[in-house]
Order: sequence, then structure tokens, then C-alpha cells
Amino acid sequence: MNIYILLFDNFRTLDVFGPVDVFGEVSEFTLHYCSLVGGLVYSSHHVPIMTEVMPLTIFSDSIIFIPGGIGTRSLVNDVGFTKALTHIIPQASYCLTVYTGSALVAKTGLLEGKTATSNKKAWSWVTSVNPQVNWQYHARWCIDVCFYTSSGISAGTDMALGFVADLYGQERSRLIADSMEYVWNNQSYNDPFAEPM
Amino acid sequence: MNIYILLFDNFRTLDVFGPVDVFGEVSEFTLHYCSLVGGLVYSSHHVPIMTEVMPLTIFSDSIIFIPGGIGTRSLVNDVGFTKALTHIIPQASYCLTVYTGSALVAKTGLLEGKTATSNKKAWSWVTSVNPQVNWQYHARWCIDVCFYTSSGISAGTDMALGFVADLYGQERSRLIADSMEYVWNNQSYNDPFAEPM
Repeated sequence: MNIYILLFDNFRTLDVFGPVDVFGEVSEFTLHYCSLVGGLVYSSHHVPIMTEVMPLTIFSDSIIFIPGGIGTRSLVNDVGFTKALTHIIPQASYCLTVYTGSALVAKTGLLEGKTATSNKKAWSWVTSVNPQVNWQYHARWCIDVCFYTSSGISAGTDMALGFVADLYGQERSRLIADSMEYVWNNQSYNDPFAEPM
Repeated sequence: MNIYILLFDNFRTLDVFGPVDVFGEVSEFTLHYCSLVGGLVYSSHHVPIMTEVMPLTIFSDSIIFIPGGIGTRSLVNDVGFTKALTHIIPQASYCLTVYTGSALVAKTGLLEGKTATSNKKAWSWVTSVNPQVNWQYHARWCIDVCFYTSSGISAGTDMALGFVADLYGQERSRLIADSMEYVWNNQSYNDPFAEPM
């Protein structure tokens, strides 16, 4: 399966590279680091990543991965980007988001009526992008059919392990987490950063 | 303070980008993504990073950060690389390693007689590179004067937060960890992946 990691300037570094460290250990996955126009893209910590051009047509067993970060605040108003997401996401088997990446997908309307989550510290902004999404405050990550959306930054790594577990079993993810010396929070409802509302 | 992140082909992705997500939130730090000759460097998960040429002369308040990864297995035998490390590290205030990055520093001899650690699954190989190091099996990370060495992959993020706490206080690191929605293991001796020996 191809995983298309869709990058943009000022994406949050760990949103991408925690999950990449998980997916990169799964031999069934081929990772593609993409952006809409290709070339160098910089994370919010100025990490320069060389990207391929994101293909607008993908195979149906593909996975789209969309990080968050401060760059989403302007990107959510980029009509061309939203149009591209609206075109690409329905072709994929799964769409995964981390942090404020769910705001970008919410903007397309594809999450309307679906359960999703996002970062706690950006909660008001993300949920305001599209109030028709069934936003879940208390969640490390949410699953609704093909959409996996995680809470903030580090939660993406837990979700990535959860996604691999859903496809290939808990033991597979447990082995990957152990090899990363990572203490995996494997319960999607266990959100240590959600304050009582 | 300048942090020089010294990359090489087949470095482990999360070794670098967990700590970068921490250091990048510290306004006192300026991050440089370097390699000995500059240009594109690929992580073990094929992430293409554009690097600057690592300067051979650095200011004394600089920090050198060296990841591990499968690339260290051949790099440890690269005389030019070891020579460069031997020349650069003594100029810095601190040298931080993650995972098998400690093997690269051990090879220079600069860790001899010093307390250090590394990944549990690569333990025999790393410790064989230089048995004159005081290798600590049970440690999430070790500190000996200017050397911070962490255990495997994810441990680097805990160490990075510990390093920031040592410089700027626990509260500063706690705020960063919370903003990352990261459950920080802040005890360097608490190693959940060390089996009883």
C-alpha cells in the first residue's frame, strides 16, 4: 500500500515523523513524501524536506496522511488546496490526520457527520472550521469508517500504531513500539491531555 | 545557542525529529540540519532532508546532536567521519546522542571512562565498539559532564526534554511536553525497556 504524506510549509515536525517511524517499519507500506507542487517544504522547525509532486489520481488501496501545524491556519483558506484534498481523499482507502490536520479535512466537508478529534490547545479554532463534524474532545484518536484523526502531535504516533494494529494485529504494533522503545498508549479513548469540560 | 544536528544516510527518523520537536520550541536554540558534505541525506525511512555542510569550527556554546540508525553500522568504520567527530565535539558545550549514535562517539575515544547508554536491542554491538566506556544498561538516558546519551529512538525525546530542563528548569520542559501532548518520562533512570540482566 502506498502512503502519501502530504506536506506543506509550517507542518508540525513530530506530527509527521512519529508516524513515519511506525509506518516505515511496516514492509507492506511504501512511503511518499509529497506536496502539491513538489520541491523543498519546511516544517515549523525549519526542517527542509524534498517532496515529490502529489499525484491527483491514486490507487484505491492508497492512504493519505495529513499533518497539522501552524501552516494549517492559512492553508485552510487556500481554495486550491481544499479542492485538491476534496478530489484526492475519496480515492483513498484511508485518510489519517494528526493535530490540526483534521481542520484541513473538515474544510472539505468530507468529515461532516463523522466523528473526529484534534489538538486540545487549538480546539476552538479547529471545531469552528466546520461545526458539522461530530467533534470528540475526549479522544487520543478517533476512527470513523476510513477517517483516522488524532489529537495533538505525539498522539499521531499512538494513532499510527493503532492503525497498524487494526490492519495487521496488536502484536505487530507491539513489536514495532518495543523496537522504538516507545511506551504506546494503545487505547484511543485514553486522552491524558483532555481537561474536564 | 546553535544546535548542529549531524545527519548521515540511514539515520533513524524519530531519533532526530522527536528531539527537534522539543528543541524547536526553545527560542534560545537555533537548529542546523547538517551533514559532512551537505546536500540530500536520507533517513532509514527514506525521508529526504536537505542539509548544510557541517562547519569544522564552531562556537564554544554550540551543541552537537548525533542520531543513531542502521547507517551507524558502516559509519563507525569511516575513518574520515570519526576524525571529523574527534575534531568537532571538543569545541562544543554539549554532545547529545540517541540510540546507536553513542557508538559513533564511542569510536572517537572521547567517551572512554565516561558513563553512557544506548539502545537495548543493539547493546552487544554498541558496547563492543569501545569497551572502555562505562556503559549503563539500565538508563533512559545518561549524563556525564558534557555528554548526554540516550537509549533507543523514543528515549531521545525524553532526553531532549531532560536537557532543556537542566538548562532552563523542569517547568519549561513540562510546558513543551504538554503542548506536544507528550507523556514525558522525566526520570533518566526509569528505563521501561531494560530487561533484568
